[in-house]
Amino acid sequence: MRYTLAEIAAKIGGEVKGDGNRVVTGINSLEAAGPEELSFAEEKFLKEAASSRAGALLVPRRKHEGLSQDLILCDRPFQAASMIMAEIDAAAQFLPPGISATAAIGENVSLGENLHIGPGAVISDGADIGDRSRIYANTWIGPGVKIGSDCRIYPGVVIRENCVIGNRVIIHPNSVIGSDGFGFLQIGGRNVKIPQIGRVIIEDEVEIGALCTINRAALDETVIGRGTKLDDHVHLGHGVKIGQEVIMCAQVGLSGSVRVGDRAMLGPRVGSVDRITIGAGARLMANTATAKDLPGDRDYGGIPAVPAKQFLRQAMALTHLPQDRKRITALEKKLRELEKTLAALQQQDTA
Amino acid sequence: MRYTLAEIAAKIGGEVKGDGNRVVTGINSLEAAGPEELSFAEEKFLKEAASSRAGALLVPRRKHEGLSQDLILCDRPFQAASMIMAEIDAAAQFLPPGISATAAIGENVSLGENLHIGPGAVISDGADIGDRSRIYANTWIGPGVKIGSDCRIYPGVVIRENCVIGNRVIIHPNSVIGSDGFGFLQIGGRNVKIPQIGRVIIEDEVEIGALCTINRAALDETVIGRGTKLDDHVHLGHGVKIGQEVIMCAQVGLSGSVRVGDRAMLGPRVGSVDRITIGAGARLMANTATAKDLPGDRDYGGIPAVPAKQFLRQAMALTHLPQDRKRITALEKKLRELEKTLAALQQQDTA
Amino acid sequence: MRYTLAEIAAKIGGEVKGDGNRVVTGINSLEAAGPEELSFAEEKFLKEAASSRAGALLVPRRKHEGLSQDLILCDRPFQAASMIMAEIDAAAQFLPPGISATAAIGENVSLGENLHIGPGAVISDGADIGDRSRIYANTWIGPGVKIGSDCRIYPGVVIRENCVIGNRVIIHPNSVIGSDGFGFLQIGGRNVKIPQIGRVIIEDEVEIGALCTINRAALDETVIGRGTKLDDHVHLGHGVKIGQEVIMCAQVGLSGSVRVGDRAMLGPRVGSVDRITIGAGARLMANTATAKDLPGDRDYGGIPAVPAKQFLRQAMALTHLPQDRKRITALEKKLRELEKTLAALQQQDTA
Repeated sequence: MRYTLAEIAAKIGGEVKGDGNRVVTGINSLEAAGPEELSFAEEKFLKEAASSRAGALLVPRRKHEGLSQDLILCDRPFQAASMIMAEIDAAAQFLPPGISATAAIGENVSLGENLHIGPGAVISDGADIGDRSRIYANTWIGPGVKIGSDCRIYPGVVIRENCVIGNRVIIHPNSVIGSDGFGFLQIGGRNVKIPQIGRVIIEDEVEIGALCTINRAALDETVIGRGTKLDDHVHLGHGVKIGQEVIMCAQVGLSGSVRVGDRAMLGPRVGSVDRITIGAGARLMANTATAKDLPGDRDYGGIPAVPAKQFLRQAMALTHLPQDRKRITALEKKLRELEKTLAALQQQDTA
Repeated sequence: MRYTLAEIAAKIGGEVKGDGNRVVTGINSLEAAGPEELSFAEEKFLKEAASSRAGALLVPRRKHEGLSQDLILCDRPFQAASMIMAEIDAAAQFLPPGISATAAIGENVSLGENLHIGPGAVISDGADIGDRSRIYANTWIGPGVKIGSDCRIYPGVVIRENCVIGNRVIIHPNSVIGSDGFGFLQIGGRNVKIPQIGRVIIEDEVEIGALCTINRAALDETVIGRGTKLDDHVHLGHGVKIGQEVIMCAQVGLSGSVRVGDRAMLGPRVGSVDRITIGAGARLMANTATAKDLPGDRDYGGIPAVPAKQFLRQAMALTHLPQDRKRITALEKKLRELEKTLAALQQQDTA
Repeated sequence: MRYTLAEIAAKIGGEVKGDGNRVVTGINSLEAAGPEELSFAEEKFLKEAASSRAGALLVPRRKHEGLSQDLILCDRPFQAASMIMAEIDAAAQFLPPGISATAAIGENVSLGENLHIGPGAVISDGADIGDRSRIYANTWIGPGVKIGSDCRIYPGVVIRENCVIGNRVIIHPNSVIGSDGFGFLQIGGRNVKIPQIGRVIIEDEVEIGALCTINRAALDETVIGRGTKLDDHVHLGHGVKIGQEVIMCAQVGLSGSVRVGDRAMLGPRVGSVDRITIGAGARLMANTATAKDLPGDRDYGGIPAVPAKQFLRQAMALTHLPQDRKRITALEKKLRELEKTLAALQQQDTA
């Protein structure tokens, strides 16, 4: 990267205040940026910005006093920085279009234009991949899988037969889509496998972290709705239905047939039993686990899940618990003494 | 799939009630099935079955009134459906026998008949693979590994040196068998690796989910007994010994040298410290963690694990905890007042 | 393996007591070792050693009475055994130097001497790999990645662009280094990806388990310090900074920008919110989760984390909670009775 501030201002719709000819060679955090680098500060970080070594800063139009650096004024500094970061990212991750000679392409495969298919990738019979998608090395795309356009399927990803992936979907390395759900019939003391013949549907703009498992349904479909984002190590059981623009942090695990409404946010390691519903807009704190439906647009915490405020009160009360037990014992002792005193008094009165 | 009801009845040992010539082209859930599809209902779902759009139904011989669809009567509808699903599954996952030209086959390798070895698979020196096993693409089978017959080793699975896999074993994508256990000696402030030279033994009919890690023992063996089933993201430490027909749900993590008895059922995210024993037939609720032995044939919950009934009582009591603290404070106040009143009364009496 | 006891004694700086010409063909645990095998016992296991079937034993120089086996006396038996185990391990995992014909080597790649690069490995443009490192089959080494000397990068590992791996680093199968951190801007009800353009730095002698995810920083760096060891399924968010000689057990998950000091020990499934600091030498019990900084050199447990002693007291108190609720109710009842009695007495006195 090598841009003048004037060039960057033009890209992001900003306005230079200072030397528009200053050249920056990268973008970095306020702490780490050097004099050749651009950084950025929302209004609440202007103080930190003042002491940053960054040569130039993206700052809010409406408030940016007290800064000695060359500035680019804009509406949303972090969002503007993201646009520059996206350009650097695209260059760092560039892969030329083309199909590697060591990729294994099956029969009746439909391939779009300007695709990249990496070394050792396996594209099975009947698969269909859209324009400009990048299928990295050593992936396995099963029979009948459909992948949209502009997707990134990172190395080692496995997508089992007949799953459907939308457009602009990102799947990070070594994740597994459409693996068998976990279902067994107990017959004569043995666990007998229930075949899993459904599939997984992943809608447009979904992002799935590294090392996730999205199980295929036993019958019908597991669905992840448009714009939903999963962090690493997330597990979704068979038949799970996730809404749109949902956020799931790392190590979340949802059992079979769970439903999650639009815009819900699940913190790290959230879990649930099967067949329950987490409402739209619900927010679950880290480590929350639920065995019951949770109505939407509220905050939850704890095992089992309760409203977040109650969980925080419980957690606080828990720290006092050993001491409270002593208080109960002291009360019991005092009460016994009081009873004795009172009995003595009654006897005395009677006497 | 394209069968008449008469053909399906013959396959599963059932009896047609209605039009035996009706053709069905798939099998689906009561909710999702259409008029060309077969569905199934155990006795308790006959009401839902009555309103299903399915063209035909597998239903119990002894009870099936009130249904307008064409029926196949049988002893266990879900089990019968599973037989049909297995056939569909086998077709969807069919791989032709043969060894891919891009597989890397080492020296002194012993290969059975009608094997499939996929593109990019690595079969290391001295490995031994039984008849009809399917070793998918981009797997890594280490030196001296033995795999039985009729196994499915999905893409990206890694099996390290000298591990032994039985017959009819399924290992889902990107799981790692026989990776080093986690052991270090502290020498002069440094963590020095204890080499892990044992192995893993996986017995017949075991199924291991996607993205599991089964660590090799430091010495001797890690063992998973016959018929045991592991969901995705399960971690077994070095030297763990698992009995037969055990069920482990997703994200279970057991530390080194833990023993689990036959038919135990471990819910999602169950954990344990090293060297303890979970008895045969024990059932652990989701999120249970234990630092002590748990006798078999009982239910457990909580961190640390206690009998399930007690855990549920504790969890219930926990929700009252903030309020109970106030009750204690109120008691203390009242008691102080009572003491004062009594003291006044005593003084009055004395006077 | 086939050594006389005299040969082993020479290797480890020990002294034979008994038949130095006795040949042993392996090393095993006290329980599992047979008459042809060597075993070992620290002082506290000498009783178990006496009844072991092992043909020979590594035992402490200063204490070893009551044993009928041939002995090798040494300062630290387990450490001596580890030396022999390391030799067996090296032989079992031997890979000849060389670059597989099916590896894909990019442009401007710098390769050291006596490297192994396995089948299907992808070494991207500008990567740099040091002497004697072993890059196993089906790995993906991204553009500009630097890997030091004497590393082991097991099958299926993915290292994204520009990450830096030190010397003598071990990364177990299917782990993912430098995958995108999890960051989004909410713009108009949509989650818009924040590009992750930082990198990961892994210092010398680090060991990373199987199926771990170490996310690249949004900007600047995620760092794992020298000698730190991670078990399987560990997740480190973007910008995390881990000190030296830290131990992290399986399934640990740390959110973005968390700092962990030198020699800290994190038990299984430990978690934290983002941006907090866990002090040097802190020890966190299994399942601990923290939303606040934890000062170093102390023990912690619980969700939320409290000092370990307090957590154990809380956990103990929790088991009494249902019964304690009954005690409170009983106290309330008795107090009401007492109040009545007292009121009656007062009235009587007045009368």
